[in-house]
Amino acid sequence: MSDGTVYLVGSGPGDPELLTLKARRLIDEADVVLHDKLPGPDILAEIPDDKREDVGKRAHGEVTSQQYINERLAELAHEGKDVVRLKGGDPTVFGRGGEEMLYLAEHGVTFEVVPGVTSAIAGPEVAGIPITHRDHASSVTFVTGHEDPDKEESAVDWAALAAGGGTIVVLMGVTRLPEYTAALVEAGMDPETPVAMVERATREGQQIATGTLATIVDARDGAGIEPPALTIIGDVAGTRERVVDFLAPTETTDD
Amino acid sequence: MSDGTVYLVGSGPGDPELLTLKARRLIDEADVVLHDKLPGPDILAEIPDDKREDVGKRAHGEVTSQQYINERLAELAHEGKDVVRLKGGDPTVFGRGGEEMLYLAEHGVTFEVVPGVTSAIAGPEVAGIPITHRDHASSVTFVTGHEDPDKEESAVDWAALAAGGGTIVVLMGVTRLPEYTAALVEAGMDPETPVAMVERATREGQQIATGTLATIVDARDGAGIEPPALTIIGDVAGTRERVVDFLAPTETTDD
Repeated sequence: MSDGTVYLVGSGPGDPELLTLKARRLIDEADVVLHDKLPGPDILAEIPDDKREDVGKRAHGEVTSQQYINERLAELAHEGKDVVRLKGGDPTVFGRGGEEMLYLAEHGVTFEVVPGVTSAIAGPEVAGIPITHRDHASSVTFVTGHEDPDKEESAVDWAALAAGGGTIVVLMGVTRLPEYTAALVEAGMDPETPVAMVERATREGQQIATGTLATIVDARDGAGIEPPALTIIGDVAGTRERVVDFLAPTETTDD
Repeated sequence: MSDGTVYLVGSGPGDPELLTLKARRLIDEADVVLHDKLPGPDILAEIPDDKREDVGKRAHGEVTSQQYINERLAELAHEGKDVVRLKGGDPTVFGRGGEEMLYLAEHGVTFEVVPGVTSAIAGPEVAGIPITHRDHASSVTFVTGHEDPDKEESAVDWAALAAGGGTIVVLMGVTRLPEYTAALVEAGMDPETPVAMVERATREGQQIATGTLATIVDARDGAGIEPPALTIIGDVAGTRERVVDFLAPTETTDD
């Protein structure tokens, strides 16, 4: 019996229509779809029960370890199964897809990465914010916000980001919003720089808050923004108020 | 008669299977699909001729101006047409979607942005490169490479990018590769930093070259890499050689 193939597949930001045609086909053809909660309820509901394997939680409420997921992917492929590892957003935008790729190659498993629409781009867009603009932003950086910016060994160099002058999109940055907005201002960014937050982009319950580096913490609290949410920092965030009256309503937006 | 809606739709990196389900539906339902050459021949071939409007070139070989495209979108919407403005990759990742959004809002046209898979993420992934990695890269920056890094008023701060320590993905950066790799080394990046280039990602004729900041110019010339291509700079680019023997062949790769 020959080995199966593992497909590391991005499921997009949550709206089932933002799956790619390829993701849809691979899910339909797979022997097993290994997933956690991140693709969101609407997409998970469309996977036939007899091929779903939920690795989001294990017995007694423990979170499944990445090591278990890696091993299970290789095990299924060695049993001859074609496996879809379905991931939220895109597989390698902070998705640990890189770790899965390396493990699979090290264990002799053929794999393919199937890109998906990342919420880091879709979130700003559904809020009326282009992530780059010819006149305002000639670069964009995606960064994780779950580290403490005061930590000596923080892997994120907020001062370099402030100096770069491009759009900054912070993923997983709800809790530490006060720390990194302060770090950016301290590094020289204008406190009046526009900022927007988008919670549950493209999903039921989508919420948006806007402000500036100086006011966004209050705006977050006023709107009750909770994880998962994105923070968009830069002049482009000011586009929303100029276009919001003409944004077509989408079925997934909660008004 | 009521006005139509304009959908600014990302078509993904070129493989027709990397269209989203939503893009596919909107193309099917649109009265008019306004496009240039960037979505690529395979996707354009699937649009019915009677609704295609090619704004990539006009008479006498002139390139259509952005102003003409903006005006045409608004005109069609005011005639009651539902219009898909089909764009390569994602609409606002260096796609001038931001300009179209602002023009439409200023002219009273309802619009929606439909995100697509950007080649800046898909390109690295099909080459076996994750754009972030827990241990190597906690941020990623997309930047355009078509500006002269020696220009005083260059909008791209290569020194800040070098200091940031994350993955750098340069779009439209084939010609100026010698200038910006030199600028990054001069700003303190290790000349041994891995670099990869991906030409025509997910399309027929896809080509990949690898090296380091010190050697990539020779590698580019040796492989004959031509625009459109991406440059991926950072430790993650070294992943390719560790996984390449286990990358599943895709039909669109030219071996």
